[in-house]
Amino acid sequence: MNSPHLSRGAKQPPPPRGSKLRVYSNRFCPYSQRVILVLDAKKIPYDIVNINLSSKPDWLYDKVPNGKVPALETENGDILYESLIIVDYLDERYSQYPLHPKDPLQKAKDRILIERFNKVISTMYRVMMNVGRISLDDDEAISNGLTTFENELGDRVGPFFGGSKPGMLDFMIWPWCERADILKLFGNQHLLKKDKYKKLMEWRTRMTEETTVKKSLLDSEFHIKYLQSYRAGMPDYDLILNSK
Amino acid sequence: MNSPHLSRGAKQPPPPRGSKLRVYSNRFCPYSQRVILVLDAKKIPYDIVNINLSSKPDWLYDKVPNGKVPALETENGDILYESLIIVDYLDERYSQYPLHPKDPLQKAKDRILIERFNKVISTMYRVMMNVGRISLDDDEAISNGLTTFENELGDRVGPFFGGSKPGMLDFMIWPWCERADILKLFGNQHLLKKDKYKKLMEWRTRMTEETTVKKSLLDSEFHIKYLQSYRAGMPDYDLILNSK
Repeated sequence: MNSPHLSRGAKQPPPPRGSKLRVYSNRFCPYSQRVILVLDAKKIPYDIVNINLSSKPDWLYDKVPNGKVPALETENGDILYESLIIVDYLDERYSQYPLHPKDPLQKAKDRILIERFNKVISTMYRVMMNVGRISLDDDEAISNGLTTFENELGDRVGPFFGGSKPGMLDFMIWPWCERADILKLFGNQHLLKKDKYKKLMEWRTRMTEETTVKKSLLDSEFHIKYLQSYRAGMPDYDLILNSK
Repeated sequence: MNSPHLSRGAKQPPPPRGSKLRVYSNRFCPYSQRVILVLDAKKIPYDIVNINLSSKPDWLYDKVPNGKVPALETENGDILYESLIIVDYLDERYSQYPLHPKDPLQKAKDRILIERFNKVISTMYRVMMNVGRISLDDDEAISNGLTTFENELGDRVGPFFGGSKPGMLDFMIWPWCERADILKLFGNQHLLKKDKYKKLMEWRTRMTEETTVKKSLLDSEFHIKYLQSYRAGMPDYDLILNSK
């Protein structure tokens, strides 16, 4: 998971040992983490090839039409990309530990919530990458988004969106929730106040205790260090390796 | 299908007769057409409520959280939105005339192609709505997109993307292909030249002969008239009704 990120000029790694799936990934990419979480939750064996997103190896473009991560390579060399399409494929092909609700209506409702979370993602991204402080509009977009999820948790049996165990919705929003403390850096302490999003905060704590989540979990300290390197124009993807 | 479009102040229509699905739609909205095509392909009974998108009835926002069309209302009053989520729901819930490939890998590949078609959609939209003539960049984006689909048809058994009958991929890209002649208005005759996209053009003709497609099909003449009214700032959603 923390293997060095391959850059332009790096040799293409040999196929994975045994009949395994391979993920072209990046340790700090939240979309890649979605795929990793689902592979871990379903206990599907896989192999990771980490990619330096600032200097991609040429062969990546031969493998993946859009040259982006995450991409999944099947045992037969088929390539899939787009995180949500990859995870749906995994859930359909590997029947163990099903993650989507069985009921088509509930599944569709959860997929709508995942779409709605995109508004939180894009606002978080803008705040983290470009602007120093949170604008009122961004603050409102994130608050509205989180309130939707807070209320949703209240309406469900819980403690997870997926019920007694995390399901697809839990895992699809998790990577950004893992990074939420970063927002405090920008002075909006109240954004993540425990009393405003009580259920969501309890959910977050419970998620960090899940074996699946623990596998790819990084402390806020690492996320903040990475963000600082990114904002300085030199993203340190090998931060974890280098800090050992 | 061609019922008047309800505007602000219009009374909310009573529930559909019998146990039917209802689609909040707009006669010229290609995303709404996706849902209609799938309902027709699977022979699911439904009821249409057309919405004036320039002056939406207030009750629409009580029904649909984002106030957008298409939205699907189930017999129990549940609301789904986002065209691709609605059609996946319909294909899962109603097993007759399955539209997605059974193989999860092929299904995922088709979903990636539907995502890739978004590039064609967004470029077509920009060209049709804002700019007078096609820029070289837009021209290239549309050409690259169409070439992908032309090659894809060559690789498949055909004559449709779905095989001997149109499948989900065929229906999801159709609404924009139905409107493709509009691009000729902007002077790029070569864009849709028959010899460049031979298979795609044959596919297009074959699609217009399908019963499902015929049900919602509009002549280019109508699409062009609608676009002219839209660009003049007064979209005439009731164009078909008014022209009778």
